[in-house]
Amino acid sequence: MPVRVVGFDGDDTLWHSETRFHVTQGEFRDLLKRHVPDADIDARLAETEMKNLSIYGYGVKSFTLSMLETAMDLTQRRIPTADLDVILGWGKRMLMEPTNLLDGVEDTLGALSDRYDLVLITKGDLFDQESKLARSGLGHLFGGVEILSDKNKETYRGVFRRRAIKPEDFVMVGNSLRSDIVPVVELGGRAVHIPYEVTWAHEEVREDELPKNGWHRLETIRELPAALESMR
Amino acid sequence: MPVRVVGFDGDDTLWHSETRFHVTQGEFRDLLKRHVPDADIDARLAETEMKNLSIYGYGVKSFTLSMLETAMDLTQRRIPTADLDVILGWGKRMLMEPTNLLDGVEDTLGALSDRYDLVLITKGDLFDQESKLARSGLGHLFGGVEILSDKNKETYRGVFRRRAIKPEDFVMVGNSLRSDIVPVVELGGRAVHIPYEVTWAHEEVREDELPKNGWHRLETIRELPAALESMR
Repeated sequence: MPVRVVGFDGDDTLWHSETRFHVTQGEFRDLLKRHVPDADIDARLAETEMKNLSIYGYGVKSFTLSMLETAMDLTQRRIPTADLDVILGWGKRMLMEPTNLLDGVEDTLGALSDRYDLVLITKGDLFDQESKLARSGLGHLFGGVEILSDKNKETYRGVFRRRAIKPEDFVMVGNSLRSDIVPVVELGGRAVHIPYEVTWAHEEVREDELPKNGWHRLETIRELPAALESMR
Repeated sequence: MPVRVVGFDGDDTLWHSETRFHVTQGEFRDLLKRHVPDADIDARLAETEMKNLSIYGYGVKSFTLSMLETAMDLTQRRIPTADLDVILGWGKRMLMEPTNLLDGVEDTLGALSDRYDLVLITKGDLFDQESKLARSGLGHLFGGVEILSDKNKETYRGVFRRRAIKPEDFVMVGNSLRSDIVPVVELGGRAVHIPYEVTWAHEEVREDELPKNGWHRLETIRELPAALESMR
């Protein structure tokens, strides 16, 4: 069955995202170390983020609020306000960073948009995602944009329904096994995994939980046009 | 032209929202007064919120981050961390509050859903809005849900395009002149304004900027079925 619609994840598939979390988390670790040298800061932050996921959802604002909470908790509220102000500033800096496209994205999407319907399917903070897309200069290449609060079987099913997409005509392209590959393949679609240099632990999937068929792995988005051609 | 599709705003049209901001802002004022008795706390918070709107967007998480920033700025970073922790807790409390429907909403929507296509068109934080809708018990009454980062002519035009809605078949129902009435009427749709007990200053519109025709004002959603009937 030839491919008709190609879905693209945004963060770490089209533009760099996890690196900005990674860099900020490094700064957070250095700042907190000065107050609580023995604490496992990364583990505590991850714990706070997971605990808050059902209240805050994904995104930079949620991450900022969880950093503030972790900083207060770990220091038993002894951290100076000036340090919390620094953390607040990191959140703003992340939100204002220019959208930094991955290598090959612009050329590849330009070429594919003549042959397929391209849909951006991304999760996280609505405002931040729209703002990143606007700054990416890629907006005109997409026939549709879906910003989801989470990516799972149910939310992909909603996308297929709203856009009258048959799973067998659809290929999802993304860096996250958990969000981009597994749910789409389970619904009968196909998927292409393009790993990013850093993966958020939350997005990882154990090898034995991965679907056996229905997906490929590529090293770079530049290999995508040939891979889509070969899917018949 | 008979009405085919009815759009509903969520916050302060179907469920209480501004009251939770109002109550929290009162607590914020009381807390800050202890540190800076002479400051115009409400004005400073409003200023911070407006300055941050293009970075954070709308919603409770944005409001929480702006409260924290205002508290630090007004006290020149002298506010104790324990007080900032209290503010962080208010944000969570707001996000976890049950969805409290306005009087008459359930009956009216139930009756209207047999005759019209109902679409929820709300703005703000994607995760919070979805979560409120899920807890409202109203989800099954809507044929579609649109959560927008802002409500203006451009974003309503996007809704009309995506859902193949002709403006002349459409009526928007909401409490905000700025977000629910003006842009819809300017696009050739009709609108019903149902004021809420409290209006956020940001949503107010000067009387002379209001459209002359194309919209009605009702006191309660209970009057809506008759009003829609009369629009022919």
